[in-house]
Amino acid sequence: MIETMVWSENEEIRTGISTADLKDALTDENRFVWVNIHDEPVESSRKMLMDVFDFHPLAIEDALEETHVPRIDDWGGYLYLVLRIIDREQDFNEEFKTRELDVFINNNYIVTHQEQGNLTIEKVWQLALRNSQHLRSTPAHLLYLILDAAADDFIFAADKIDLIINELEERVFYDPDPKILEVISTLKQGLMSLRQVIAPQREVLNKMARGDYLILEEDSRLYFRDVYDHFHRLYEIIDSLRDLTGSTLEIYLSVVNNRMGNVMKTLTIITTLFMPISFLTGFFGMNFFQPVMGATGWTNFTVFYIVLGIMILLPVGMLIFISRSGWLK
Amino acid sequence: MIETMVWSENEEIRTGISTADLKDALTDENRFVWVNIHDEPVESSRKMLMDVFDFHPLAIEDALEETHVPRIDDWGGYLYLVLRIIDREQDFNEEFKTRELDVFINNNYIVTHQEQGNLTIEKVWQLALRNSQHLRSTPAHLLYLILDAAADDFIFAADKIDLIINELEERVFYDPDPKILEVISTLKQGLMSLRQVIAPQREVLNKMARGDYLILEEDSRLYFRDVYDHFHRLYEIIDSLRDLTGSTLEIYLSVVNNRMGNVMKTLTIITTLFMPISFLTGFFGMNFFQPVMGATGWTNFTVFYIVLGIMILLPVGMLIFISRSGWLK
Amino acid sequence: MIETMVWSENEEIRTGISTADLKDALTDENRFVWVNIHDEPVESSRKMLMDVFDFHPLAIEDALEETHVPRIDDWGGYLYLVLRIIDREQDFNEEFKTRELDVFINNNYIVTHQEQGNLTIEKVWQLALRNSQHLRSTPAHLLYLILDAAADDFIFAADKIDLIINELEERVFYDPDPKILEVISTLKQGLMSLRQVIAPQREVLNKMARGDYLILEEDSRLYFRDVYDHFHRLYEIIDSLRDLTGSTLEIYLSVVNNRMGNVMKTLTIITTLFMPISFLTGFFGMNFFQPVMGATGWTNFTVFYIVLGIMILLPVGMLIFISRSGWLK
Amino acid sequence: MIETMVWSENEEIRTGISTADLKDALTDENRFVWVNIHDEPVESSRKMLMDVFDFHPLAIEDALEETHVPRIDDWGGYLYLVLRIIDREQDFNEEFKTRELDVFINNNYIVTHQEQGNLTIEKVWQLALRNSQHLRSTPAHLLYLILDAAADDFIFAADKIDLIINELEERVFYDPDPKILEVISTLKQGLMSLRQVIAPQREVLNKMARGDYLILEEDSRLYFRDVYDHFHRLYEIIDSLRDLTGSTLEIYLSVVNNRMGNVMKTLTIITTLFMPISFLTGFFGMNFFQPVMGATGWTNFTVFYIVLGIMILLPVGMLIFISRSGWLK
Amino acid sequence: MIETMVWSENEEIRTGISTADLKDALTDENRFVWVNIHDEPVESSRKMLMDVFDFHPLAIEDALEETHVPRIDDWGGYLYLVLRIIDREQDFNEEFKTRELDVFINNNYIVTHQEQGNLTIEKVWQLALRNSQHLRSTPAHLLYLILDAAADDFIFAADKIDLIINELEERVFYDPDPKILEVISTLKQGLMSLRQVIAPQREVLNKMARGDYLILEEDSRLYFRDVYDHFHRLYEIIDSLRDLTGSTLEIYLSVVNNRMGNVMKTLTIITTLFMPISFLTGFFGMNFFQPVMGATGWTNFTVFYIVLGIMILLPVGMLIFISRSGWLK
Repeated sequence: MIETMVWSENEEIRTGISTADLKDALTDENRFVWVNIHDEPVESSRKMLMDVFDFHPLAIEDALEETHVPRIDDWGGYLYLVLRIIDREQDFNEEFKTRELDVFINNNYIVTHQEQGNLTIEKVWQLALRNSQHLRSTPAHLLYLILDAAADDFIFAADKIDLIINELEERVFYDPDPKILEVISTLKQGLMSLRQVIAPQREVLNKMARGDYLILEEDSRLYFRDVYDHFHRLYEIIDSLRDLTGSTLEIYLSVVNNRMGNVMKTLTIITTLFMPISFLTGFFGMNFFQPVMGATGWTNFTVFYIVLGIMILLPVGMLIFISRSGWLK
Repeated sequence: MIETMVWSENEEIRTGISTADLKDALTDENRFVWVNIHDEPVESSRKMLMDVFDFHPLAIEDALEETHVPRIDDWGGYLYLVLRIIDREQDFNEEFKTRELDVFINNNYIVTHQEQGNLTIEKVWQLALRNSQHLRSTPAHLLYLILDAAADDFIFAADKIDLIINELEERVFYDPDPKILEVISTLKQGLMSLRQVIAPQREVLNKMARGDYLILEEDSRLYFRDVYDHFHRLYEIIDSLRDLTGSTLEIYLSVVNNRMGNVMKTLTIITTLFMPISFLTGFFGMNFFQPVMGATGWTNFTVFYIVLGIMILLPVGMLIFISRSGWLK
Repeated sequence: MIETMVWSENEEIRTGISTADLKDALTDENRFVWVNIHDEPVESSRKMLMDVFDFHPLAIEDALEETHVPRIDDWGGYLYLVLRIIDREQDFNEEFKTRELDVFINNNYIVTHQEQGNLTIEKVWQLALRNSQHLRSTPAHLLYLILDAAADDFIFAADKIDLIINELEERVFYDPDPKILEVISTLKQGLMSLRQVIAPQREVLNKMARGDYLILEEDSRLYFRDVYDHFHRLYEIIDSLRDLTGSTLEIYLSVVNNRMGNVMKTLTIITTLFMPISFLTGFFGMNFFQPVMGATGWTNFTVFYIVLGIMILLPVGMLIFISRSGWLK
Repeated sequence: MIETMVWSENEEIRTGISTADLKDALTDENRFVWVNIHDEPVESSRKMLMDVFDFHPLAIEDALEETHVPRIDDWGGYLYLVLRIIDREQDFNEEFKTRELDVFINNNYIVTHQEQGNLTIEKVWQLALRNSQHLRSTPAHLLYLILDAAADDFIFAADKIDLIINELEERVFYDPDPKILEVISTLKQGLMSLRQVIAPQREVLNKMARGDYLILEEDSRLYFRDVYDHFHRLYEIIDSLRDLTGSTLEIYLSVVNNRMGNVMKTLTIITTLFMPISFLTGFFGMNFFQPVMGATGWTNFTVFYIVLGIMILLPVGMLIFISRSGWLK
Repeated sequence: MIETMVWSENEEIRTGISTADLKDALTDENRFVWVNIHDEPVESSRKMLMDVFDFHPLAIEDALEETHVPRIDDWGGYLYLVLRIIDREQDFNEEFKTRELDVFINNNYIVTHQEQGNLTIEKVWQLALRNSQHLRSTPAHLLYLILDAAADDFIFAADKIDLIINELEERVFYDPDPKILEVISTLKQGLMSLRQVIAPQREVLNKMARGDYLILEEDSRLYFRDVYDHFHRLYEIIDSLRDLTGSTLEIYLSVVNNRMGNVMKTLTIITTLFMPISFLTGFFGMNFFQPVMGATGWTNFTVFYIVLGIMILLPVGMLIFISRSGWLK
């Protein structure tokens, strides 16, 4: 689908513009154009980008393919941005998914392209439609709104992940299931890849805030500075979250270790209690006594009751000793 | 509650000002106003902020909602700050609580807003009342006093946490209770979230100290530099504390490991002592001897006493060997 | 083999130039020369570098030997670069191999030298041949193309390694084979050595992008800035990958630890179940009972069935208790 | 005790000056004053600081209380420094003690205040007395000498700690006593707190070296740069020492782990050797054979000797197998 | 031994100069002097440094004592450097040894002093003798040559250590001997102390490259920049090596852990196989059966063969189950 929007300072927003009108609007310095392409076949997308906007073929190829890493290219008359936005509606226990958003922008138009339609852009589109007054109506400002919404989505994701980690941290104590390891591992990888998206995106915004691109009006730098701050903070939050997953792993290992220690103690107590008295039964089971040898002194009732007493009192005494002395604590 | 305070260089401090007088005072360049809003319904707060001070609706919304992250916005005629202050009266073994403090400030007035009344602000309010002479009486200076008090509270909290960690470090050696793990885990999370408050707060102060905001008088930068130094040091202290909790965890693990090693040694010694002599009892319990077979040589008193001797001397000898040779140390 | 290429703005690309023509071309400011030396004996390489280009003997020695560490030397009339490129066609589970590429460059010529022919250079050579128009035809631009291709190769390698680590991370859970340790160890070392190549290479590009070398035309700095960005990102990716291998090792250890815990539990359960009832068999195997002593009360059928019952019910009861209470979980 | 010293370029050093003479000297631009206060009651200290030097009450309060964190305050006509110096004569296996040193300084005087007399200051005092010629006789230079001596003390302490760690590292291999854990823990905490003293002290010196304080003569910046370098290096040394303690802990854990592995091997070998032959004794102890059943084939001398042989050869063979194959290594 | 060398641009190099000639040469701006002192008694060294060069007594004391930490002092007419060089001919498995090299330098002379003669200096001396033409013959250039050779030695050492670590990494897998721990520990400490030498040495070079010392000719800064780069890279290499030893330790621990897991499995399998059948032998060894009780049904041949069958089939079956199900893997 190719959605179009044309407006100017004196003119109401109009949508669903024909290609001819679009070309017209583009020649007029005072009118602004937003073209949003999504869920559109590659061919017709290319046609729009090439015929109406006359972008450089290389830039168009970059836009129509997945390029993964956020970056910004200055093509003279316009900027080409590769951005990544995150999908709010996903299970953050699994691998996170981010989507590519391609943007062409100069002072007159903004062209956004995504493979699939996406709520982030949709929201800004609706906002632009309803709120045209309040909007400082320039493409740069729209880009700011999109980036701001994208930052919000990332922060939403980070909060979700924070929640998951907090749950993990608690669960670790009462139910140190090995599955936690897989969740932690997935989270770590996810955060790592998130970081690899945020870092260059932040860099893109830094360049825009620094005013590297003359094509953008001076004023817009302030907005981009603002979004840059968001992404900078995001980067730090993601680092904190990585620390937290690391520390959750450590705590998990400690809990598992503790439990293993308890298992060992159980084993040791059982062995300590039964080995000596089992030896005793073996001793009196040897063939040295009556009827074989005449060692009557070893096998009468007195000895039996003594042995019986030992077999009861020895383990009981040891248990008391163990629990009192903290010997195996 | 909405508390008000008006003063000027020649004029005594007056409190409990009516809205009309307040508006009056605000129009006079030489008079200063402090309005402190807390435990007040949202509606009347909004009314005050809107009608008397005419702040931007967006800034007011930010102030009346929880925004969590410290930041500073320049709204032209005034600055809007989101700050976080810590609650001294809490159990630092649990999750720490920080509270939001919203500030509107320019050279003539300062407006502070918190959901609940708070000792930090209260103290500065009292200080301002009593000590009006000594006070370099400008809103910027009041903000400095508030920020300074906030820094003190944070340092107080850090000292408390330091104490808790020191106690933990000692307790770890004589009582490596698994509960320590939970305390450490809570501390770590708490310090992490503290850091995420301190970092942007420090950044806010950095901007103020750097003189990014022309609305504030040149002199005040020195104060804010001072508070910035406090927060910078706080950030470093919190990092140290994180290191300390990490190292406490390591030490805890080492102690647990040591104890597990001792348990293993006990198990091994018991097994080593009893397995051979238990085998011996089994050997002489076999059905090969009298009365079954005529192997009289195996079951006479001589053999019995030899076996008895072995059963006593073997474990004793092994114990001596173990303790002397350090074989199982 | 020594491949040669000569071109100018008005002139078609010609290859296979004789030494005399080459010397001629070098004296003409408007003509550009690329000489690519590979799989060539040291002697003839030296002759070419010395006789035709008159490079400094020390620079030539550096070029003909392996010097390992990327660096850039300014020899006045030309720059000498040591670069390293990676071999795409290798097994990244093994030690990675990088190759040395020596470059002499000024505004008129570029000389590339490698011990073995290499696809990276080959590709750029072909590109230059076919695409002479599109090429901004200067030696600096060719160097840019080579460096860009090299960066691509490194990123290709990083992606491969990323894949390997991801596979490892998954395999760790269902098959924590000790061999994984060796793979991780090799990867770590490989990434470490990759980093030691990337770091100085990035530094070389930084110097070129910063305009430290007046011999290169002002414009070319932009290209080198671009490649510098690639190598900077590469450096960060490699750091991430190192983190990932570290975290894979941690996860591996945790999984192994978990399995060991399970083994311990098995051991403890078996011991706990059988030690008490084995003691019981020993007890009734002692020589105290009939026929030795007249203790008939101990060896009749009632006792036997009670003992039998205990021997069956005790372990069954313990098993139920263990599985229900989570006592050994 | 209040020690006083007055000198000028043309005048010999005099000590034990009366308060009146002191006030006199302070009014003379060409004369220098050093007042050293230690082991003095708070009241008389305050009197001296207030009446003779007329310092700000807040600065005096700071000086007479413990403030812990090194810092520098510019009070217009003089600087107030809080420094911390270390006590050489202490047991570095225990918690380290640092002491507070308060300094008031301008171009004419230096006032030092400590709760207890201290060798570091004492040495500089003696040096000043004897060596007045060689001294570039200004208060700033005296402060430099004091700071230099303080840095020496810290480096002395760091060397001591280094020695302790080296001893630990060696002891860890032949005697991995759990007490080592406590020593390491104390060292870590001590180094952490040392770092928290060194860091702000270094910052104080940085400010002085940078020339932030106009009250100090231009020349003195070079000295302070020198001491700054010392403290900077100290900071790095302390970081290294922290690394070393961390690595000692790791090595300790590895050694303990190794020993535990050996204990486990012993346990396993004992169990492996005796369990099978114990089973064998049990087997032939069953009531199936003569005289119960007529299974004479199982209980004759041939079988006995075979069993005897197995009981001797099986464990011997297993031992040989184990030690040769490295199966349990 | 005191070796001397005098030369100028027009004059051949002469060695073995008398003290008088030396003093002469020092007064001549156009002549250069190198005095190399090694294996010389302190007294005659001091005499030379004092009488011929008239260095400051404090600088001379520093030169004649061991001062350990590289640094540079500007004494007005000359620079005094403390450097450390490494001994190539040593066992890098043991503690590394570095040696002190003291240098006095200005534009006319260079004085080098070491306690023991040393190959690094020797090589540069020989180079200076033979290669006087090619040499840009100034003391600064000689210092550069010395520093360059020193850097080479350090890189040689780093390569050696790298080799040792690589060997360790491989050995860890097939022979995880506890001695490896000691080697790793020694390496770590060695690298740490190497770092503490390299860091200030790099700083010294940084200052020289930055042009902090006017006594050195402008041109020489380029050389020192070059050596600075070497030392900077060295620092990074040493950090990498530290990482590598750390990771070797981790791998070692993992391998040891794996082996311990195997030991545990063996123990568990043995216990699991023999405990149940041992119980069985105990069961039938009780005194309940014939001849005591008339329970003939328990002790006939049928039961015997069933029991025998169980005793054979149960462990065999369990072994098969274990190896197939991967239950104990």
